[in-house]
Amino acid sequence: MNDFNEKAAQNLTAIREKKPLIHNITNFVVMNYTANALLAMGASPVMAHAQNEVEDMVAFAGALVLNIGTLTDDWIQSMIKAGRKASGQQTPIILDPVGSGATPLRTGAAKKIIAETRVSVIRGNASEILSLRHAESKTKGVDSIHSVDEAARTASVLARELDTALAITGPVDLVTDGDRVLRVKNGHPLMGYVTGTGCTATVTIGAFLAVDDDPVSAAATALAYFGLAGEVAGQNADAPGSFMIQMIDALYTITPEALAEGCKIEADE
Amino acid sequence: MNDFNEKAAQNLTAIREKKPLIHNITNFVVMNYTANALLAMGASPVMAHAQNEVEDMVAFAGALVLNIGTLTDDWIQSMIKAGRKASGQQTPIILDPVGSGATPLRTGAAKKIIAETRVSVIRGNASEILSLRHAESKTKGVDSIHSVDEAARTASVLARELDTALAITGPVDLVTDGDRVLRVKNGHPLMGYVTGTGCTATVTIGAFLAVDDDPVSAAATALAYFGLAGEVAGQNADAPGSFMIQMIDALYTITPEALAEGCKIEADE
Amino acid sequence: MNDFNEKAAQNLTAIREKKPLIHNITNFVVMNYTANALLAMGASPVMAHAQNEVEDMVAFAGALVLNIGTLTDDWIQSMIKAGRKASGQQTPIILDPVGSGATPLRTGAAKKIIAETRVSVIRGNASEILSLRHAESKTKGVDSIHSVDEAARTASVLARELDTALAITGPVDLVTDGDRVLRVKNGHPLMGYVTGTGCTATVTIGAFLAVDDDPVSAAATALAYFGLAGEVAGQNADAPGSFMIQMIDALYTITPEALAEGCKIEADE
Repeated sequence: MNDFNEKAAQNLTAIREKKPLIHNITNFVVMNYTANALLAMGASPVMAHAQNEVEDMVAFAGALVLNIGTLTDDWIQSMIKAGRKASGQQTPIILDPVGSGATPLRTGAAKKIIAETRVSVIRGNASEILSLRHAESKTKGVDSIHSVDEAARTASVLARELDTALAITGPVDLVTDGDRVLRVKNGHPLMGYVTGTGCTATVTIGAFLAVDDDPVSAAATALAYFGLAGEVAGQNADAPGSFMIQMIDALYTITPEALAEGCKIEADE
Repeated sequence: MNDFNEKAAQNLTAIREKKPLIHNITNFVVMNYTANALLAMGASPVMAHAQNEVEDMVAFAGALVLNIGTLTDDWIQSMIKAGRKASGQQTPIILDPVGSGATPLRTGAAKKIIAETRVSVIRGNASEILSLRHAESKTKGVDSIHSVDEAARTASVLARELDTALAITGPVDLVTDGDRVLRVKNGHPLMGYVTGTGCTATVTIGAFLAVDDDPVSAAATALAYFGLAGEVAGQNADAPGSFMIQMIDALYTITPEALAEGCKIEADE
Repeated sequence: MNDFNEKAAQNLTAIREKKPLIHNITNFVVMNYTANALLAMGASPVMAHAQNEVEDMVAFAGALVLNIGTLTDDWIQSMIKAGRKASGQQTPIILDPVGSGATPLRTGAAKKIIAETRVSVIRGNASEILSLRHAESKTKGVDSIHSVDEAARTASVLARELDTALAITGPVDLVTDGDRVLRVKNGHPLMGYVTGTGCTATVTIGAFLAVDDDPVSAAATALAYFGLAGEVAGQNADAPGSFMIQMIDALYTITPEALAEGCKIEADE
């Protein structure tokens, strides 16, 4: 355990020192909030989505965030273009399949991005993640998962099938690459009342991927940091408006030492 | 009067229990704020605007919000497509004709949406609403309205001509379906200093339409709740930045009981 | 010096009295924040970007803000169209060349807007502004500027070459039309941790241009006011989430008298 606490602190220190550029092709709803979150934690956000610009922009990036929350065919093309370029230059990609499973456009776009680019981490809730299964997947749907252990086994199989790390967020977050399984227990109930909380968890993982080569460690430490920011915010706010502002404050004020002390990552044995 | 106070409390309770999905095709400026407002009140927002997705998404929705604040021809097509699907499946539609009357694109788009879909409520300020008159309308323009009573009569005639309920917001809000006329007296002057206050009133009506079959009652109780949130926010903030955050907090903290007590809806006899 | 303090107060008073309409064609990240900033200072924001609407909308505007932060070819066309119309009717234009120099799309778009419209002020950081040089410019790149005086000389030459006023923001802001050089020393370090601070400085200049015919005076007094808002916010907040809300509050609460007293504009002799 202490390994991850240490690693979380190192990652946060590295972000604040290197200020990695995080290239986001993301949805309209959360652009402002995720940009502010990235700045508060110490990273440098840029949003750029034109098909004739994304390759130029991702060339400078430490990580690429692809988020399908408000999608059109044009934007899917831009995501694929940026993703291919990022894959070629070994820039880590994190995919947020917002609403995958809800409409064919979203499910199809998420699967296409996974097929045509080298995604390091996919961050979503359980139903979004399970919607990404191939037709021949050995996993079952969300309705047939009845325990925490079943969820972990399913996630592991799916991570191997998709050849990527998965970060499945919920009351307890689950991170796996099919081999290791980590659980992150930081967080606060008010996070569910702020739009783009999941998307902001995603960009946080993006920033951690820019300084940590191990996707599992990057995702788990990022989620611990983000969840801890929720806990700190929850001490200062009891309604979602104030809470979302306090979250940004906490991302800025949490020190690496406080993170090492407060992060709650557990490995399945 | 007490009927509406009771109804307001019932509607708010129903939103928090059922968490209706509100599908928004809306403008870029307010997407984040209206999503946060919907979450704070207890509803579930989704933003989706692609022409090849809107019909799939609105299929799940409890209400459809169409807002023309940052418009292009593509988005108009998406609004019409979503609106027709919603009309066919009896999902209530609320239209916010932002800036209608200011440019031909906006006035034309608003009129087209009204003509091609079944709109339950239109929410706008007086000049936006009056810009929606047909060439053969029996009503006069905003310059020839000199009293509150004249405004109410004009609104009633226009509601019948457009075959929808109208929610005309201002210092006192006026709601009518051409038959009944209600006035809502909740609100706070700082609401005019926050961008998207009108748009947020609109999504609030959207959430109330998802749980209340009567458009007049849904619109009036929603506006009372929203105005009451402004009053509560105004007790805790005296400048627009803090005020807009306190508004979100108030949407979350106001209980059905507090709403029943604080809502100021009056019916014209 | 006292001339500018006086002028700053006059400009702020004029904005609050006339409530000029500021037409923004800007990026998705900052639309909400800049609209709220404009409302808080007393102006009336409108966002409209459709090619078949921008000329109709800019017809009513007191100033036009062009910001290339999240760009596509369509949006460039809209900016040119709106800019030409504004130029023809003597409406001042302020350009924010976000990220110019980083990608060909951005540098090309900024240069095209400068070539095809009559820009009154360009607001950017030093590297964005220097990326706008012609191939035959007599100025050198950012790497060959080693002193404050060299920066001022370079900016003056570039302003003459581009035939516009330049507002180069940083720890000390520099405003010049090639003839006069002003330095603005208001500001706060946390401004760098809020997304769209630069873009919001830009819209503030837009509002001041709507009431002040002299681009140098408009830009310098706007930046002093905006920087003073940062100073006031910094007294009430020590992390970027709270700070960005306090900024909006300060734009609303700062009186013309407080601005006259607090603004720090110095002219190079």
